[in-house]
Amino acid sequence: MTTTVPSLMATPPGRYYSDPEIFEQERDRIFHRSWFAVTHVSDVPTPGKFRTARVGRENVVVVRGHDGAVQAFLNVCRHRGFLLCKEEYGEVRRNLRCAYHSWTYGLDGRLVSAPHLAKMPDVDRGDWGLKRLHVREYLGYVWVCLAEEPPSFEEAVVHAITRRFDDEQAIDSWQMAELKVGRRISYTVKANWKIIVENFMECYHCASIHPELTSVLPECVQGYAAQYYAGRGLSFREDAEAFSVDGTGGFGKLPGITEDQDRTYWGVTINPQVFINFVPDHVIFHRLFPISAERTIVECDWLFAEGVPEGARLDHSVELFHRVNRQDFEVCEMCQLNMKSSAYETGGVLVPHEHHIAADFHSWYLGALETA
Amino acid sequence: MTTTVPSLMATPPGRYYSDPEIFEQERDRIFHRSWFAVTHVSDVPTPGKFRTARVGRENVVVVRGHDGAVQAFLNVCRHRGFLLCKEEYGEVRRNLRCAYHSWTYGLDGRLVSAPHLAKMPDVDRGDWGLKRLHVREYLGYVWVCLAEEPPSFEEAVVHAITRRFDDEQAIDSWQMAELKVGRRISYTVKANWKIIVENFMECYHCASIHPELTSVLPECVQGYAAQYYAGRGLSFREDAEAFSVDGTGGFGKLPGITEDQDRTYWGVTINPQVFINFVPDHVIFHRLFPISAERTIVECDWLFAEGVPEGARLDHSVELFHRVNRQDFEVCEMCQLNMKSSAYETGGVLVPHEHHIAADFHSWYLGALETA
Amino acid sequence: MTTTVPSLMATPPGRYYSDPEIFEQERDRIFHRSWFAVTHVSDVPTPGKFRTARVGRENVVVVRGHDGAVQAFLNVCRHRGFLLCKEEYGEVRRNLRCAYHSWTYGLDGRLVSAPHLAKMPDVDRGDWGLKRLHVREYLGYVWVCLAEEPPSFEEAVVHAITRRFDDEQAIDSWQMAELKVGRRISYTVKANWKIIVENFMECYHCASIHPELTSVLPECVQGYAAQYYAGRGLSFREDAEAFSVDGTGGFGKLPGITEDQDRTYWGVTINPQVFINFVPDHVIFHRLFPISAERTIVECDWLFAEGVPEGARLDHSVELFHRVNRQDFEVCEMCQLNMKSSAYETGGVLVPHEHHIAADFHSWYLGALETA
Repeated sequence: MTTTVPSLMATPPGRYYSDPEIFEQERDRIFHRSWFAVTHVSDVPTPGKFRTARVGRENVVVVRGHDGAVQAFLNVCRHRGFLLCKEEYGEVRRNLRCAYHSWTYGLDGRLVSAPHLAKMPDVDRGDWGLKRLHVREYLGYVWVCLAEEPPSFEEAVVHAITRRFDDEQAIDSWQMAELKVGRRISYTVKANWKIIVENFMECYHCASIHPELTSVLPECVQGYAAQYYAGRGLSFREDAEAFSVDGTGGFGKLPGITEDQDRTYWGVTINPQVFINFVPDHVIFHRLFPISAERTIVECDWLFAEGVPEGARLDHSVELFHRVNRQDFEVCEMCQLNMKSSAYETGGVLVPHEHHIAADFHSWYLGALETA
Repeated sequence: MTTTVPSLMATPPGRYYSDPEIFEQERDRIFHRSWFAVTHVSDVPTPGKFRTARVGRENVVVVRGHDGAVQAFLNVCRHRGFLLCKEEYGEVRRNLRCAYHSWTYGLDGRLVSAPHLAKMPDVDRGDWGLKRLHVREYLGYVWVCLAEEPPSFEEAVVHAITRRFDDEQAIDSWQMAELKVGRRISYTVKANWKIIVENFMECYHCASIHPELTSVLPECVQGYAAQYYAGRGLSFREDAEAFSVDGTGGFGKLPGITEDQDRTYWGVTINPQVFINFVPDHVIFHRLFPISAERTIVECDWLFAEGVPEGARLDHSVELFHRVNRQDFEVCEMCQLNMKSSAYETGGVLVPHEHHIAADFHSWYLGALETA
Repeated sequence: MTTTVPSLMATPPGRYYSDPEIFEQERDRIFHRSWFAVTHVSDVPTPGKFRTARVGRENVVVVRGHDGAVQAFLNVCRHRGFLLCKEEYGEVRRNLRCAYHSWTYGLDGRLVSAPHLAKMPDVDRGDWGLKRLHVREYLGYVWVCLAEEPPSFEEAVVHAITRRFDDEQAIDSWQMAELKVGRRISYTVKANWKIIVENFMECYHCASIHPELTSVLPECVQGYAAQYYAGRGLSFREDAEAFSVDGTGGFGKLPGITEDQDRTYWGVTINPQVFINFVPDHVIFHRLFPISAERTIVECDWLFAEGVPEGARLDHSVELFHRVNRQDFEVCEMCQLNMKSSAYETGGVLVPHEHHIAADFHSWYLGALETA
């Protein structure tokens, strides 16, 4: 006796992609509880350098301490809520000093001084430090979790990669901690973050909107995304030299890349906000910053080997996925416009080429959202 | 024994003109259930030409089919909700093809093809067509209804005209299906749609704000609108040649106009969103597209006989009601600003010259809104 | 037996500074019930001159009547809610005439005429006047209260000043009704009005952000605001000539200023929306107009003796507090950004230098908000 899966599986209903109240629940139950890749370690290269970013409802500051370790805090002064670090990228000499009343915190977040604090003997500095967040460095990125009890980093992040490669060591070939950010582009997308995730996970749309990508990766035309598979990437066109806008140029391959991995594209999604694209000579790393139910900032880094020069050849590689991004984000915005339609009241559908979205994303998402 | 109607009758309370929740109820119970004049038939002159528009919460596409008949659909791909037709006015060759994943629909809305559909034998194309809407052509316009069971077109639309003329045949004199759109102007008005309807229905304000109109239609000064009456229009000034900005020029009269109808203005409101102004040589046709509780797009067409040339004479006729529109919409916006005032908590009042607004619009409106 | 007050007292929770629903409650329970300083009497110098302003949810018009007395009304026509006076500053000849349907009100608010009113014998003009508001003139300003039963002006306004000076007569030294508005600057601040009040009340931040102010008032560096004290001001720097951007210039002192009051700064807050700064040769008068939970318009007047000429010397005095205002409003905006942070969920804290904010503002505020 066999059961058959119907060809068309339902997505969540349209209100999940447009209702501000559901977005607030997502902030509480997903963004405030997950590991979030906030920034590249090279954005905070030396003690006192910081980067701020929005994670869920919070403004977060990532700063490198005097001991060389990276820390992360809510970017909120304990006295009157002032936004401690104003710039997106910045540097302080010794301390984080609030510009309003001069409450001053060490780079480890501890309250160091405040005007007239000596006259407040009942105030224990230990109680009034910045709200400290859990931090992990992995793949060259600083990952932050706002929860008191963060989920297992191994299960939430590392396994997503392992599962896709079907191999625990594969990721090591790229030695990502050694790569440098060759280009960073930030996109403001007027679409719910889940539409962007769904779009990234499937290649059923590739033949329709990605001429450059399907030219370099001809298998795309079949409509199966690299992440449809475990342990299988998409091969380059036979005469393509590189993963670039026209298949020429590129930088050969990174030193650790094996024969199996060469001339192949791999894609990984790490819920809820990271996409990684692996090719032999570089890595493209997307981080989503959901701003509202209908708006998401996507920051995309192109990572190359140390020593790869800026210039036309690098532009040529970047241009491919920059086009893919713009093609994708435009269609995501066109979907967003109908999320409140009665025609999407019960959601849309996934074809068989997209069923892995239900298994790998929707079921994770709905489970996470329901966990009060 | 007689009962007397008080001179001042109440309008609905201010929140009906400003509360987003009431606007959502209006979308469900009025805009999604009424016949809506979306566009002129000449906007979709040949097979494959389409026009998109907002009706209530929905984006709608009107398209002429290969059989020459006009169709209307929700502008939403059944696969992932993509906005099928992006432009406001456009043309397709054979089919409506979704730009995202290439699901393709016939001009009759049926699903024609989709990538790899052959490998989904359980999918019945008949189940996955576009959501089709009820359509009627009348007076040269395409009227659409989103409801499964539309109201009687005769009762909802035709009778509104008949009742005003107090004559079933009068409308035929204008042979509106033969007229062409000589000018179209779209106005964005920062006011609730009902303020615009009330304004159009009464002429108690004409003496205050419409100098050009009262000059051509001196009876306006008495404050009774043409639609106060059944079977009676407003006469032109004795020495006026035409319904134009200064009473000169014009184009004589349309062939079907009777002696009774000549040198006379008639006004009709068809709830919830059409106003028609009849004069001997042209027709001015307003369609309201409510966007939010406090914003409405009004598209206004000036319809002339086939063969009337563009140019100064036409401009001269258009200019009269273009000024009236601007005068009206400005005062509507000034009312909107006070809809949340405690002074309007129980609404405003209608003087006797305006009592027909209660009978013909408010009672219809409140009845429609209460019908769950 | 003694009890000790802890050094750190809590402010209200962050949602009080950001939640639109709480803002609506504030409109009903505070702005619509308090005495509001709307405008300077010289803004409506002669009969027919008017000024409009936003008070809570209402648009209010202040107008000088034919009898020379100042009146205030809801700026809302009783017929259809039209915004009677459109300009912020304006003048009418005899009456307030609605531009929509010509309902016409006397400067005393009574309905004078309306088109065809003679044919509505059941309409009593006395019932259809503008909604009249309570008005007081005090310190050269027009104070308005929207409530049917306004609070005692003596208790709500006059005592706030008396309590600060610890002297009932002190305020008379400035003869404020005789002063003229030398400069008016309007600031749009993206912060909740209470953040602006808290900021004005304390000087714990002065050393951090107000270099010019602390230079002229060296005591500021201690962090105690003038309004921390009853009956005590802050002394000028020994060699300062005036309360100006660099301590030079100024205009000596106003005729009524006593020796005690000379060379001293006093600050007063009148809940919910007035700040007054007294120095020997001028007065700086702030009025807050809360627009939304996260936006406030602050109108600030610099008042000088009749006869003080416009020009460089006046600019020099104005420049000091104009800088203070900009410094303050910038930090207020930086606090606003974190009012929804979990780090501010239970609010911030007040140090001992700020405890008077709890006593004089927060307890008043929470009491007023709770009174249904």
